[in-house]
Amino acid sequence: MDMIKGGVTAAKGFEAASTAAGIKYTDRTDMALVYSQVPCEAAGTFTKNVVKAAPVKWDQKIVKSGCKVQAVIVNSGIANACTGAEGYGYCEDTAKAAAEALGISEDGVAIGSTGVIGRQIPIDKLTAGIKVLAEMKDHSLSNGTEAAKAIMTTDTAEKEMAVEIEVGGKKVTVGGMAKGSGMIHPDMCTMLSFITTDAAITKEALQKALSEDVDDTYNMISVDGDTSTNDTVLLLANGLAENPQIQYGSDDYKIFAEALHTVNEYLAKKIAGDGEGATALFEVKAVGCESTEQAKLLAKAVVCSNLTKTAIAGHDANWGRILCAMGYSGAQFDPEKVDLYFESKAGKIQIIENGTALDYSEAEATKILSEPEVTATADVKMGSCAATAWGCDLTHGYIEINADYRS
Amino acid sequence: MDMIKGGVTAAKGFEAASTAAGIKYTDRTDMALVYSQVPCEAAGTFTKNVVKAAPVKWDQKIVKSGCKVQAVIVNSGIANACTGAEGYGYCEDTAKAAAEALGISEDGVAIGSTGVIGRQIPIDKLTAGIKVLAEMKDHSLSNGTEAAKAIMTTDTAEKEMAVEIEVGGKKVTVGGMAKGSGMIHPDMCTMLSFITTDAAITKEALQKALSEDVDDTYNMISVDGDTSTNDTVLLLANGLAENPQIQYGSDDYKIFAEALHTVNEYLAKKIAGDGEGATALFEVKAVGCESTEQAKLLAKAVVCSNLTKTAIAGHDANWGRILCAMGYSGAQFDPEKVDLYFESKAGKIQIIENGTALDYSEAEATKILSEPEVTATADVKMGSCAATAWGCDLTHGYIEINADYRS
Repeated sequence: MDMIKGGVTAAKGFEAASTAAGIKYTDRTDMALVYSQVPCEAAGTFTKNVVKAAPVKWDQKIVKSGCKVQAVIVNSGIANACTGAEGYGYCEDTAKAAAEALGISEDGVAIGSTGVIGRQIPIDKLTAGIKVLAEMKDHSLSNGTEAAKAIMTTDTAEKEMAVEIEVGGKKVTVGGMAKGSGMIHPDMCTMLSFITTDAAITKEALQKALSEDVDDTYNMISVDGDTSTNDTVLLLANGLAENPQIQYGSDDYKIFAEALHTVNEYLAKKIAGDGEGATALFEVKAVGCESTEQAKLLAKAVVCSNLTKTAIAGHDANWGRILCAMGYSGAQFDPEKVDLYFESKAGKIQIIENGTALDYSEAEATKILSEPEVTATADVKMGSCAATAWGCDLTHGYIEINADYRS
Repeated sequence: MDMIKGGVTAAKGFEAASTAAGIKYTDRTDMALVYSQVPCEAAGTFTKNVVKAAPVKWDQKIVKSGCKVQAVIVNSGIANACTGAEGYGYCEDTAKAAAEALGISEDGVAIGSTGVIGRQIPIDKLTAGIKVLAEMKDHSLSNGTEAAKAIMTTDTAEKEMAVEIEVGGKKVTVGGMAKGSGMIHPDMCTMLSFITTDAAITKEALQKALSEDVDDTYNMISVDGDTSTNDTVLLLANGLAENPQIQYGSDDYKIFAEALHTVNEYLAKKIAGDGEGATALFEVKAVGCESTEQAKLLAKAVVCSNLTKTAIAGHDANWGRILCAMGYSGAQFDPEKVDLYFESKAGKIQIIENGTALDYSEAEATKILSEPEVTATADVKMGSCAATAWGCDLTHGYIEINADYRS
């Protein structure tokens, strides 16, 4: 597998565009189009929040019905969540406008929205934006990057990634873009992420590859414990790589799944590290576990702990808070057997052994915790399963961004 | 029932004392004694965190064994959690020193600690402090208040409360003190709370009254989602009111339970409102629910949401975040039936009806949300059950306090 440049337009036959439609932001792009020259098999995973945004309901219908998807229309600024029948009507209007502008079927249009909850989409601005997007779309990498920028809200940087693999002698590309910075605590999948591939693959294999992977990637990140109303991962495969069609469970499937995992994990970590106000990506590994489920509970509780996250913000090796979070994670373990390590580019240090503190150097620990990416590894010595979760530190920036987000 | 002055020393025969032992703090009192002139029936509820502090293990043993308790030794500054066998040994030393100084039985000594996790108690300072406490103890209300101050950590004010009821023609008093400001997300009970009563009551009735009430009081508050290693509520009854002994389920039991509830709810709300960095008590009522369990899930998810809490800090009526939190609470409901209200001393305003926003005045909503106590009421229109949870806003102060707590 090779890392290559680009994002949603890296794979054959995918195009993108972005525009400033003035949905809510007035000084930046806020709409993106992802388009495939031919219809795609589509797989999706969506928020488990009972409160689902209108575009989530729309996409669920499209993906479930087995419709082939050829375009995704995304807007930032307004989430189109808690908007009732009127909000869902705007999804229908969006699909209709995109179908007309692109000359494709209405049920081939997926939709993503992100931003403020409870406000209605100014549909005239959105449909005007669609016409611009349809004219501007092309296969360039730069258009892919610009699309990734247009879907940002409080993100500080666009997030895209692409890899290349070989399947049956053919070059296959998997690329994607994602956004997410706050209201990040996926339960099923997370935020907005759009992955494109030119692989020829059955719909069954595509959906399974995605569903199996989100639990290890997007579902293992947390910025603030708030599971969004809009979480969506869409995976589109247009088959233009002309590889022998990938079937679920085959060797080719494993190669494809690994490539997809690489893209998903990269984007998920980017989202965690770009958490609102974050200054550090905080990675937590639970190892020596009896089961993967136990490991996930432990790792996720630690990255979700406000107290742990503020300690990371302060570069403070406050390991008691980590043990405390593990303790209320819901996983059973013996606190008096736990070993804990901190690690970063600045080095690695063991902090506790069998549940109690070693005579470690606080200065060295602080140095290690002052890097922009820090890892805590907890070994509960019960087995050989492990899991990794990603979060970020909790800083003044988070408060600033969120105390008055709507204005 | 009458509210009266005082806290742990309000009930007959209870004494208290405090001293500056220099456990960790150097400029304030950090040890407290609660003492009863006669041995007490004791009830307790303790953290469900797998990682239990040494004093929690000690108290659980005492309460479970049925020992009569005559003294409680509490220190702030160091939590004696994650301290292994050495830490538990210091509990034994504490009980021994207190028993000697007070002339009581070792297994009549309960212990509470709060503060930094993972550091060992300087036992010489603690035992020296016990001698001072034993000499200084008395029944005055001021000594009760001083004890409530000595057990504070990041709390900004002491928390105490007392009520008087009549049982079988006798005046019975229930009073208590509590501390808690961070690492507050009780799962079973919370932080440190010590309730004293002169009621004559069976051990069974005492424990049941406490266990049944913590689920509606301490377990319904959250400051930061972090369930502490040290959560403890101890309830001591010395019988000096000379009322006919209260049996579980009797009319007198109901009167006693109501008095206990009043004290517990008051202290729980004080803890929530004094959350680290908090500027407002945030009360959330879920009404119109099918079951109390559903109502509790809904109310608690909202007070725990970082995004909702930062919105409250910004006096921003960001109702979408409230609906979002309800959506991931685990409770089922129809988002399109929800009504939501904000209320405070400044007035009451309906924000959404049947899941979508009304044309309310943002200025009026902001005015209502700018008070030091604000209430959000969500009606899901499914039944007649309700629950209330208490939290606080999330501010820069929380970050400041926690980014470098240990230093």
